[in-house]
Amino acid sequence: MTMATANQERARDRADLEALARSLIDRLAAAFETAVARTAALCARDGKLDGALLDTHQWLCYELALANADLFAARGLLAIGGNVSPLDAGLGLAFAAQAAPALLERLEGIHVAAGLDTAALDAIAGGAELRRLRREAGGPDVLAALGAAVAESSGEIADVRVDEATALARDGFRRFAADVVAPLAEAIHREDLTVPEILLQPLREMGVFGLSIPEAYGGSAPAGGDNTPMMIAVTEALSEASLAAAGSLITRPEILARALLAGGTAAQKADWLPRLAAGEPLCAIAITEPDAGSDVASLKLRGTKTAGGWLLDGAKTWCTFAGKAGVLMVVTRTDPDRSLGHRGLSLLLVEKPSYEGHAFDYRQEGGGRLAGRAIPTLGYRGMHSFDLNFENFFVPDSHVIGEAGGLGKGFYLTMAGMVGGRIQTSGRALGVMKAAMTAAIRYARDRRVFDAPLIDFPLTRIKIATMAARFAACRQLAYAVAREIDLGGGRMEASLVKLLACRSAEMVTREALQIHGGMGYAEESAVSRYFVDARVLSIFEGAEETLALKVVAKTLLEEALKA
Amino acid sequence: MTMATANQERARDRADLEALARSLIDRLAAAFETAVARTAALCARDGKLDGALLDTHQWLCYELALANADLFAARGLLAIGGNVSPLDAGLGLAFAAQAAPALLERLEGIHVAAGLDTAALDAIAGGAELRRLRREAGGPDVLAALGAAVAESSGEIADVRVDEATALARDGFRRFAADVVAPLAEAIHREDLTVPEILLQPLREMGVFGLSIPEAYGGSAPAGGDNTPMMIAVTEALSEASLAAAGSLITRPEILARALLAGGTAAQKADWLPRLAAGEPLCAIAITEPDAGSDVASLKLRGTKTAGGWLLDGAKTWCTFAGKAGVLMVVTRTDPDRSLGHRGLSLLLVEKPSYEGHAFDYRQEGGGRLAGRAIPTLGYRGMHSFDLNFENFFVPDSHVIGEAGGLGKGFYLTMAGMVGGRIQTSGRALGVMKAAMTAAIRYARDRRVFDAPLIDFPLTRIKIATMAARFAACRQLAYAVAREIDLGGGRMEASLVKLLACRSAEMVTREALQIHGGMGYAEESAVSRYFVDARVLSIFEGAEETLALKVVAKTLLEEALKA
Repeated sequence: MTMATANQERARDRADLEALARSLIDRLAAAFETAVARTAALCARDGKLDGALLDTHQWLCYELALANADLFAARGLLAIGGNVSPLDAGLGLAFAAQAAPALLERLEGIHVAAGLDTAALDAIAGGAELRRLRREAGGPDVLAALGAAVAESSGEIADVRVDEATALARDGFRRFAADVVAPLAEAIHREDLTVPEILLQPLREMGVFGLSIPEAYGGSAPAGGDNTPMMIAVTEALSEASLAAAGSLITRPEILARALLAGGTAAQKADWLPRLAAGEPLCAIAITEPDAGSDVASLKLRGTKTAGGWLLDGAKTWCTFAGKAGVLMVVTRTDPDRSLGHRGLSLLLVEKPSYEGHAFDYRQEGGGRLAGRAIPTLGYRGMHSFDLNFENFFVPDSHVIGEAGGLGKGFYLTMAGMVGGRIQTSGRALGVMKAAMTAAIRYARDRRVFDAPLIDFPLTRIKIATMAARFAACRQLAYAVAREIDLGGGRMEASLVKLLACRSAEMVTREALQIHGGMGYAEESAVSRYFVDARVLSIFEGAEETLALKVVAKTLLEEALKA
Repeated sequence: MTMATANQERARDRADLEALARSLIDRLAAAFETAVARTAALCARDGKLDGALLDTHQWLCYELALANADLFAARGLLAIGGNVSPLDAGLGLAFAAQAAPALLERLEGIHVAAGLDTAALDAIAGGAELRRLRREAGGPDVLAALGAAVAESSGEIADVRVDEATALARDGFRRFAADVVAPLAEAIHREDLTVPEILLQPLREMGVFGLSIPEAYGGSAPAGGDNTPMMIAVTEALSEASLAAAGSLITRPEILARALLAGGTAAQKADWLPRLAAGEPLCAIAITEPDAGSDVASLKLRGTKTAGGWLLDGAKTWCTFAGKAGVLMVVTRTDPDRSLGHRGLSLLLVEKPSYEGHAFDYRQEGGGRLAGRAIPTLGYRGMHSFDLNFENFFVPDSHVIGEAGGLGKGFYLTMAGMVGGRIQTSGRALGVMKAAMTAAIRYARDRRVFDAPLIDFPLTRIKIATMAARFAACRQLAYAVAREIDLGGGRMEASLVKLLACRSAEMVTREALQIHGGMGYAEESAVSRYFVDARVLSIFEGAEETLALKVVAKTLLEEALKA
């Protein structure tokens, strides 16, 4: 057989397997839809979703959301089909071969709990198709070969098609991340330093803070809309060197810029956006309060009307970068009528000096006070997340986003940036996964056990292939959703990718650490940092449970009720 | 229906479900045995296991070991049957309901990869029995009710029958741990302190260091044999307050004491054991080397014969407590013939001063030198794990365990303590899990979201029930194996429990942290410490992969070949 014929044959086999995987995933999707419809019926009263019933059926909702993430990923990957390298195609199939049985198992649980007939699922479980997919796309020999190929490529896998500008930016930021960020990352983490100016200044010059700000306002976002793939590419490149010291710098200006773009007055946009794009001032976002995590409607930091502005009293927490920032976007209850819920909230811009350390105490001339204290955390160090306390702190009317017209719109304006924050967080997760996978490959090549390099052992290769398949799935998905977002959709999908990528980052960093053995647990090895950094991902920018229940499941059930 | 009748009915339902679960697990066990037999055949040459073939089939071996852990746990739990509280019985069933489908999924993968017929497994997957078990023992309503009951009990679940002395010791150590250890644990972790004398002195007085040393030598181990349940009970009680500052103190003296008991001369036993039992000196165990993790046969720290003793040259790493210890048991290559592998190793006792800090440099009068440096780690802080470097370090002949007769026996004598180390590590994992679970319950009770305590939401309760079911399974299993060990068996089983309990501790601490939301990621909350502490468990005392492949799978396959 000639080489060309062999390649053709392999391509044909792959196309066969892809068709098989697609048909299996379609069958699983049908069972999923049945479960969604049943759960929607269980949670509805008079044709509408009912809060108490949704709470009663939390488990079904949660499981459906997780199932949806896997389903969405497998479908997305298989849709890309033949347009990728043979290695990427193999990883896509391997992901499908691992996702399908996991999904089947989850759907069995859901069907049993919802009292649905499981015949269709049982047929998949007992059928030759699933067995063939597992053997030919996810069997140990296949995975070991994939793992060897991934190691050979040093983890440079999961190629995604991006426009030229994005590719250039990605390459530029990867170089910067490797040359400038990576050498500082360990010290910033271990000594809990604040991201230093030697990182921030070049990043300002490279335009990091203006990525979501239109060119007209001094940023680099295209006039016609967003370039979300660009945001992800830059975020991913920087996060590969450090989640905290570089990869998370874009999130806050994006949220603030979107709020200003959606609700700011012309004067506010003209005043703030060019400065934010330039990274002077840096900014932070204050939403969460000590007594309200994901429950925005119950926020209570109080703004009291006074001559020419508002007096702020109350506490915020988990306000990342609040020390270094020169301006905070503070979600404030400006209407004392608590029954208004999230309709009583407005966004106030609090200007303050930039501080380097772990605590500050800023006093206004008129007696106002804002005190901040960095909360020590397991990882995600460098930007620091602060407890904030406002006392009689004056904010002028000009600093209410939208001024008088913006009162009561704080929730909606915050939401404008949330989808971007979530998809960007999947970019952060991608960077961390990539770093962990690459570190594991490097270590497994160098480390000898039982007289051979660790990478020569099938189990190591299989672990690397499994990590790579997850990483590849998350990356393909993140960019696909990014493109969808730029076309005006992707709201629920952004949460799905966030769910999947953040959980995957936990798994991948766990396995990468395990491959390092004891060395992985040593703070001197970078993988130990990736592991603790990854742990924040399923918590912030929408906790896993909140996104699963309040965004994904709710959207699914609402759509089912409409159908 | 009277109360008594209702109770009887519930007990009958439970007995029914237990019978159902047992029959399912038996069917899964049969499929497992088939897979073991096939894998044994695949890995054998001339009726004996072949190293190269074992490596080729690593994935099958690994998966079989993990399947065996789940199987062993489910069987063990169900064997206890009706002799426990209704809550514990419910948790046992819940574990079985979660383990059975997971096991089925794993066995499907194994069967497909090994080319075995999956008809028996498909029948289980599609059968009404598994569905009934999932619904009635592991459905969301059942789990939510169990979670509420677990919270009600504040996590005091999984009662195990122990003798009176053990119960007394456990209660005493729990009080000490709560009153003395717990208040110091955060500072020891966050400031990376050395376990202080205010902890060590009372623990010496309480006899912690003499638990595995016979009474004749000043310890408290029964003359007729061991009391392994006692070791676990004490380890668990101390680990609940801190894995590093208290829960791990027993491991080292146990390993050294067992080596001395198995191979020491009468004079050595009489000299060392009473002092070790008294905790003066404290001891450490130096096995691992920078270039040899789990591969004991390739250890190379060199002992060169000199007048009256040996000169040590070379490096050790991950030697926990080496700074504070007054004596190190050092696995040394005393025979220069490398082809001897582990038969060229001996155990040398190195006396040194006790140091408080993170580094030491001890010089002998004759020019010998021993330098140590604590490796900074993510967690498991307090005892510190050291890099050690020996240069021309003199050890007298009297300090070779077994003296001339002990030369070449180092490997076997080390192994004497390994089974104990592993079962004890499952006790450490139990303590960490218990602490995390209790913290999650406390937090979920105090924290209000969406106008209700977090514990009122079904998903929270289900998460707590899932944690509790795992914890209960691991605890029942650990004590069952402990009793088996005292009867002379349990070698492989100790590894199985270690595998299961350490992985479970990772899961439980992950979920407990997630329940805390952002607060879980703050170093000020104890659960963040449990999370990073738990991560060491699958690495030390036999890494997960090593135990799975080299102990569990090998034993299974060897037994299959004999059959």
